[in-house]
Amino acid sequence: MKIGIIGATGYGGAEIVRILRSHPYVDECILYSSSDEGVPYHQSYPHLFKLTDQILKPIEIERIAGEIDFLFMAAPPGVSSRLTPQLDSYDVPVIDLSGDLRIKNPDVYENWYKRDSAPRHVLEKAVYGLSELNREEIKTATYIANPGCFPTAVLLGLAPLIKNGLANESFIIVDAKTGVSGAGRKVSVGTHFSEVNDNFKIYKVNEHQHTPEIEQVLGSWDPACQPITFSTHLAPMTRGIMATIYTELKESMTVDRLQRVFSDFYKDSYFVRVRKSGEFPATKEVYGSNFCDIGVAVDERTNRVTIVAVIDNLMKGAAGQAVQNFNLMNGWSETAGLDFTPIYP
Amino acid sequence: MKIGIIGATGYGGAEIVRILRSHPYVDECILYSSSDEGVPYHQSYPHLFKLTDQILKPIEIERIAGEIDFLFMAAPPGVSSRLTPQLDSYDVPVIDLSGDLRIKNPDVYENWYKRDSAPRHVLEKAVYGLSELNREEIKTATYIANPGCFPTAVLLGLAPLIKNGLANESFIIVDAKTGVSGAGRKVSVGTHFSEVNDNFKIYKVNEHQHTPEIEQVLGSWDPACQPITFSTHLAPMTRGIMATIYTELKESMTVDRLQRVFSDFYKDSYFVRVRKSGEFPATKEVYGSNFCDIGVAVDERTNRVTIVAVIDNLMKGAAGQAVQNFNLMNGWSETAGLDFTPIYP
Amino acid sequence: MKIGIIGATGYGGAEIVRILRSHPYVDECILYSSSDEGVPYHQSYPHLFKLTDQILKPIEIERIAGEIDFLFMAAPPGVSSRLTPQLDSYDVPVIDLSGDLRIKNPDVYENWYKRDSAPRHVLEKAVYGLSELNREEIKTATYIANPGCFPTAVLLGLAPLIKNGLANESFIIVDAKTGVSGAGRKVSVGTHFSEVNDNFKIYKVNEHQHTPEIEQVLGSWDPACQPITFSTHLAPMTRGIMATIYTELKESMTVDRLQRVFSDFYKDSYFVRVRKSGEFPATKEVYGSNFCDIGVAVDERTNRVTIVAVIDNLMKGAAGQAVQNFNLMNGWSETAGLDFTPIYP
Amino acid sequence: MKIGIIGATGYGGAEIVRILRSHPYVDECILYSSSDEGVPYHQSYPHLFKLTDQILKPIEIERIAGEIDFLFMAAPPGVSSRLTPQLDSYDVPVIDLSGDLRIKNPDVYENWYKRDSAPRHVLEKAVYGLSELNREEIKTATYIANPGCFPTAVLLGLAPLIKNGLANESFIIVDAKTGVSGAGRKVSVGTHFSEVNDNFKIYKVNEHQHTPEIEQVLGSWDPACQPITFSTHLAPMTRGIMATIYTELKESMTVDRLQRVFSDFYKDSYFVRVRKSGEFPATKEVYGSNFCDIGVAVDERTNRVTIVAVIDNLMKGAAGQAVQNFNLMNGWSETAGLDFTPIYP
Repeated sequence: MKIGIIGATGYGGAEIVRILRSHPYVDECILYSSSDEGVPYHQSYPHLFKLTDQILKPIEIERIAGEIDFLFMAAPPGVSSRLTPQLDSYDVPVIDLSGDLRIKNPDVYENWYKRDSAPRHVLEKAVYGLSELNREEIKTATYIANPGCFPTAVLLGLAPLIKNGLANESFIIVDAKTGVSGAGRKVSVGTHFSEVNDNFKIYKVNEHQHTPEIEQVLGSWDPACQPITFSTHLAPMTRGIMATIYTELKESMTVDRLQRVFSDFYKDSYFVRVRKSGEFPATKEVYGSNFCDIGVAVDERTNRVTIVAVIDNLMKGAAGQAVQNFNLMNGWSETAGLDFTPIYP
Repeated sequence: MKIGIIGATGYGGAEIVRILRSHPYVDECILYSSSDEGVPYHQSYPHLFKLTDQILKPIEIERIAGEIDFLFMAAPPGVSSRLTPQLDSYDVPVIDLSGDLRIKNPDVYENWYKRDSAPRHVLEKAVYGLSELNREEIKTATYIANPGCFPTAVLLGLAPLIKNGLANESFIIVDAKTGVSGAGRKVSVGTHFSEVNDNFKIYKVNEHQHTPEIEQVLGSWDPACQPITFSTHLAPMTRGIMATIYTELKESMTVDRLQRVFSDFYKDSYFVRVRKSGEFPATKEVYGSNFCDIGVAVDERTNRVTIVAVIDNLMKGAAGQAVQNFNLMNGWSETAGLDFTPIYP
Repeated sequence: MKIGIIGATGYGGAEIVRILRSHPYVDECILYSSSDEGVPYHQSYPHLFKLTDQILKPIEIERIAGEIDFLFMAAPPGVSSRLTPQLDSYDVPVIDLSGDLRIKNPDVYENWYKRDSAPRHVLEKAVYGLSELNREEIKTATYIANPGCFPTAVLLGLAPLIKNGLANESFIIVDAKTGVSGAGRKVSVGTHFSEVNDNFKIYKVNEHQHTPEIEQVLGSWDPACQPITFSTHLAPMTRGIMATIYTELKESMTVDRLQRVFSDFYKDSYFVRVRKSGEFPATKEVYGSNFCDIGVAVDERTNRVTIVAVIDNLMKGAAGQAVQNFNLMNGWSETAGLDFTPIYP
Repeated sequence: MKIGIIGATGYGGAEIVRILRSHPYVDECILYSSSDEGVPYHQSYPHLFKLTDQILKPIEIERIAGEIDFLFMAAPPGVSSRLTPQLDSYDVPVIDLSGDLRIKNPDVYENWYKRDSAPRHVLEKAVYGLSELNREEIKTATYIANPGCFPTAVLLGLAPLIKNGLANESFIIVDAKTGVSGAGRKVSVGTHFSEVNDNFKIYKVNEHQHTPEIEQVLGSWDPACQPITFSTHLAPMTRGIMATIYTELKESMTVDRLQRVFSDFYKDSYFVRVRKSGEFPATKEVYGSNFCDIGVAVDERTNRVTIVAVIDNLMKGAAGQAVQNFNLMNGWSETAGLDFTPIYP
């Protein structure tokens, strides 16, 4: 199978290249970039020196559609909105890692993203690629809106409670922390080493564009869900997301029973590892892998629940989940080429 | 003035030494340690090479009481419980940086700290040293229970709302993050470099011993306050605490009005800097200084408030606030020897 | 094939487990530890939760010899000296990752390591496992002394010059830098997070125990080689070694010719990637992989050469090279189960 | 005294502001910037919120000369070359932190810096501000070329040997490491957090523009000095430089005698702390201070010397030494406003 990757020079694209290099069903990755045409890819990413000899190609939809069997799009916001309508006339399955195809309501998209939405017919075609929760739809989709990094952790953390109607739908508070690679390779003062190192920052308080994505999915699971409180923090590390989620139980429950709700819910999901009662995951424990690890706690004094979900933002939060969906769409095992052991330490 | 420091080999003790080295009213610091008797202090802390020639002395209460005018105790938990009763017969003012004298109810202390409490008469003598909120009591105290690092950030962040009766007293959720120096110099796998670097961890979910300290103070401000939800995270950095606090307003309020509530509340407090609406502090912006910076946000969709308070855990969260209290107790300016400009970057 | 790992609770052992989990010819890893008998391995290393269900077993040589086909020893210094003589009567091939079997002269070992050497007959049996330079001997060995992390980078960086007689044998200066994981999981103040983060240290100036290992190999390649100058630095990062090597050319040479000497030398060595003239590797570019990347420079003003060699200290510097040798000893492809793409960023 | 700072938005400028805020003889700092005119300074640097109310002013030489008593220039390369000739007609003393006025030979400057040199008459006027070695000339200078960060560490490390004629003048190898703040606040992929964190890089091998600066000063001390070998590395930390210097003794010497040579040489230099034999400084031990700490070793096997010199690149390597020179020029104590205790940890 020949795979195309648009936006290969970003971190998400580079991570797809890393994964597909050892994927059992992939023969070749062809890399496209809006800049850097003609430049050897390993010049952008010397860690791939001698491991790939691909030369970056320009983004020309017709040619791309003719030379590949499957397309990953890992471009900055706005690119997919523009390119997917052009792709529509070709028969190429697409997984889009940007936020462009995730929000079903164009007004909501435009309100949070401050840019034009993709056309409605493309949005309708796109299936939300939260692999564990949407397997059947994904298998038959041709367009996948790959989930955002924060929504992946938050939704996997909340699903067992919301889907089972156990949580107070108007009490969901998410305090999320991310490593800096989530901001991509584009330079800025906010991601300059000397500004981030030994520093801890909050950003986009109540304004993060992943908020409507989370709320849209929660609402689809349970229309009673109310707006959430969501804030995001930048931690001085490269990879990793931790979502610390606070909610209230409708009925009181021991931590052991709560843990069982979670482990039952994910018993057939290889990539979600529910920890034992009293144990909580750290981000490094999923580093470089596609796992989402979850720990839960009940505070008997307040009847509140704390859910901790961690992922590698570039793997389960982007490229890893994309390949998981790629596997599902092709009828392969979900873990094909994706069973990376976390790197520790 | 001659100052004694018990527990000088810990990070809190070393930070007191750093501050007092340039304090206008301090002549000498005498350093005591339960280990390392006879060892030059700069051997433990080479950054002080040539800056101090103190030799570590053993902890002998009678001799200490005879040779100093003021005592800082920066020892591990349990030491102050044991030593303060012995000190009681001498006329030496004490600031204790441990948690031993903070909890008024011995049962609560023993429940959360899992060790014996200090005797009741010592606890009664100890004034809680949250400088900005307790100035008058501190000025006349002889024993100060210096606040914990997390409680300092959390209480300074909540005071304007709780003291003004603006927040829902049964809805207080605190998601706190700290640098690793808060764990002290004692080695452990959990603070081993390779285990912490590029990693983000949660610890002591609903079990942190600072919980009853926060609740005791909140309850003293407003008895209607209910148990809080409190979790603590370890960020891969040396210094800095951020407390992200979520609560609900009793009545809706614009962010500008909320910001005014905070800036009015702290208008006479040099070390609390309330940021403008829409601005949030990062931990590095108070690095090495005694400032607590606070930013606030209102989410109109949920009527919830997010308060962000940052401190340097070794300064305002420990040694800095201790010296601030030392200044108050001696009738000096609160900022004497303490007006360090944050180091950035 | 059934593999035994002694010292599985250290970082080197954990990295062998990570590699062998996806090795095509390995059926099972049995893990031995001198402490922690009976404890599930994932309790020590939660990143392996659900990925291994091994319980740590005690180190009993007879039982070990009976239940495994191949043994990796990743224990602290001194353990192999004691255990390998006991293993001698069994027919189990061993790769030892410690320094115990590397130094042929017991006096030299005892002088630098400050402990008793392994017996002479064991030392004689052990083949030095610098894979690229010693392939034929390794293939037929039963005991491998796996090279130290620094010697691996230094020797791969020097081999093309020394083996070709191009460098001044009395002018070799090595300035080496390592991440903290090289110090293992044993806690100490020197590897405590707050002591290492945002800090750069030199240690063991002219005293590092890897010095005689490097000199022994250089001397075996060219007896004219003189003692080297070698210093090691601790960088605030988890993984990675960079050796910056300074030497003098016997005859002047352009950088392009020098680069060709290196790339020719390693043309059949998959895991050594010689960079183009003017390009130098960074440690992150080999992170999590078994590659050693090398860049070279010539300073025409001084006729000196600068060689930069980087490895991941836990991979090519320990577990990775061990598995590479394991592959060689079993007649498999050198890259079997070992072709990890570096993780970047 | 009214002080002007051109280039206040860079890290060097911000550090001068930090120092001068508590300088006993400075009344006000006026801040100039080629961009950001009219913007409050604390908007660029929120750590100074409420600590300075300066508004950035444009760079207009005539107005500047009229409103200030002393000028610091901390602008990017090329700015001082252009501005200092304009300043020449006014009677304003200037300390320039850029490299523009350091190299006496315009051809050498243009060769290494790849840009036009300042005019010869300005270069002649400029005194090289290596405080400890040039005190008398600095006291009477009106233009100071403040030393580069690397040259400061390297020259202080070499001076006792070169000035005493003890080292082989044709054998000087400098392996230097720096934190990322040395690259300034200007963003680039090379200083992007995700590219630097947990990574160690070498850069400008044999090509660093500080090479001719070091050689010019060494040559002025001893014309027999030959070209040095100099390479620079980027360590994943914010502040700190370590120069590891390798040279050869003309005559053999014990480490104790060598240490005495160094401690005698610097016996009247408060800011240079020569460590005891066998002790070596780490960068964090001078963090935030103006100290240069030095350790020395002799390798009896090779008769080579290893000198380790550390500084905080923004302090002794830039702003700190600039203020030290400012003190000298004004006849004040060298340590006025500059006796910061290192921050540790």
